[in-house]
Amino acid sequence: MKESSRLGNLLSRARSNGVKIRRAQKKELDNLAGDVRHQGVVGLLAKVPGEGLSELRTWLNEFTGVPLIIILDGLEDPRNVGACLRTAAAASVDAVIIPVKGGAGLTPAALRVAEGGFHHLRIFEVGNWSQVLKMLKTAGIWVLGASETGRTSLDEFDLTVPVAWIFGSEATGIRQISAKHCDALVRVPTELGFPSLNVAVATGVALFETKRQRKVLSENS
Amino acid sequence: MKESSRLGNLLSRARSNGVKIRRAQKKELDNLAGDVRHQGVVGLLAKVPGEGLSELRTWLNEFTGVPLIIILDGLEDPRNVGACLRTAAAASVDAVIIPVKGGAGLTPAALRVAEGGFHHLRIFEVGNWSQVLKMLKTAGIWVLGASETGRTSLDEFDLTVPVAWIFGSEATGIRQISAKHCDALVRVPTELGFPSLNVAVATGVALFETKRQRKVLSENS
Repeated sequence: MKESSRLGNLLSRARSNGVKIRRAQKKELDNLAGDVRHQGVVGLLAKVPGEGLSELRTWLNEFTGVPLIIILDGLEDPRNVGACLRTAAAASVDAVIIPVKGGAGLTPAALRVAEGGFHHLRIFEVGNWSQVLKMLKTAGIWVLGASETGRTSLDEFDLTVPVAWIFGSEATGIRQISAKHCDALVRVPTELGFPSLNVAVATGVALFETKRQRKVLSENS
Repeated sequence: MKESSRLGNLLSRARSNGVKIRRAQKKELDNLAGDVRHQGVVGLLAKVPGEGLSELRTWLNEFTGVPLIIILDGLEDPRNVGACLRTAAAASVDAVIIPVKGGAGLTPAALRVAEGGFHHLRIFEVGNWSQVLKMLKTAGIWVLGASETGRTSLDEFDLTVPVAWIFGSEATGIRQISAKHCDALVRVPTELGFPSLNVAVATGVALFETKRQRKVLSENS
């Protein structure tokens, strides 16, 4: 009863927003959703929301203020991509950059786990990876690799400057091509005997520490 | 080939540690593992690692230093329980308290997602919930509810005192019985238009901010 009224509600909102509705067998929904739990409704987007390299260049040129960017560098699990996007939206990052090749992109599974977070984000899905990282550095942005092997702890690093955080794959960390462009490797100060954090948790800790430092700076200036 | 050498390695380590090994059909492994991906090997623990109320009382009496405790209050998704345990281990919390009733407990799914983190943790699974929270307060511990509706932001709250953080269910937050015992509700400073964080991410942000404040205090004293 409660379920069907929720569904009715959803359908009427979809209709009033001009979304075409079509009934389908469960099997077809399963296929559309892949390995994502779909609860009986599947929405199809005309296009995933990622923008490209020229949009990124324009955005960088026009951005005013101190940017906070995250780069998801070859994450393998779409659920982690989604969890990072959700965290990024909650931390109101200015942009998310994802490589076109290497790792899970903006798949349905990722978008579902993001819980709508991608609607609040500027997401760029780009190739020419070295060029992208150089472009960021030319724009005066510090490219920081989040890494267990970093020498400096998060809380000891000045994050009030323009920052692009790179988070790497669950298994193998930041890709070589990205690591060589990092201005620094920075670590979340985890327990030495159990240093590993889920990538979305590391993202949250790094982003909210960045925001905290910037808030302190703005209060003291 | 690589897989079978990994398996051989695992089996020989298990044997040398006195673990009994038995071959089983995939179906039996599936049943044992529940909805957890098991990769062909399932380990059985004689007992989940949770301790009880009297052990918690003893631990509280004997603990020296400024404790950092987390309470998982009725989380519904075992994967979130596991992700919180992993985060808690990486943040080296002193104890984890989970209610016996209400929410997912130390299930195989939770322990798998914890990536071995529970071996680094003191975990108490207790009933008599009001009594537990009162016991903490009597021991001089601040009981803080992590909540989007909290008035004070994490970074503005003094976390250098003894603290037990409560994290509530993904859908409904902290249970009423727990909320009424909280000394304060504290929020992660998320974006107002998209305030919701995954519970393991919120746990990470709260725990590492607590550790940061304590480190600053110890450096300044």
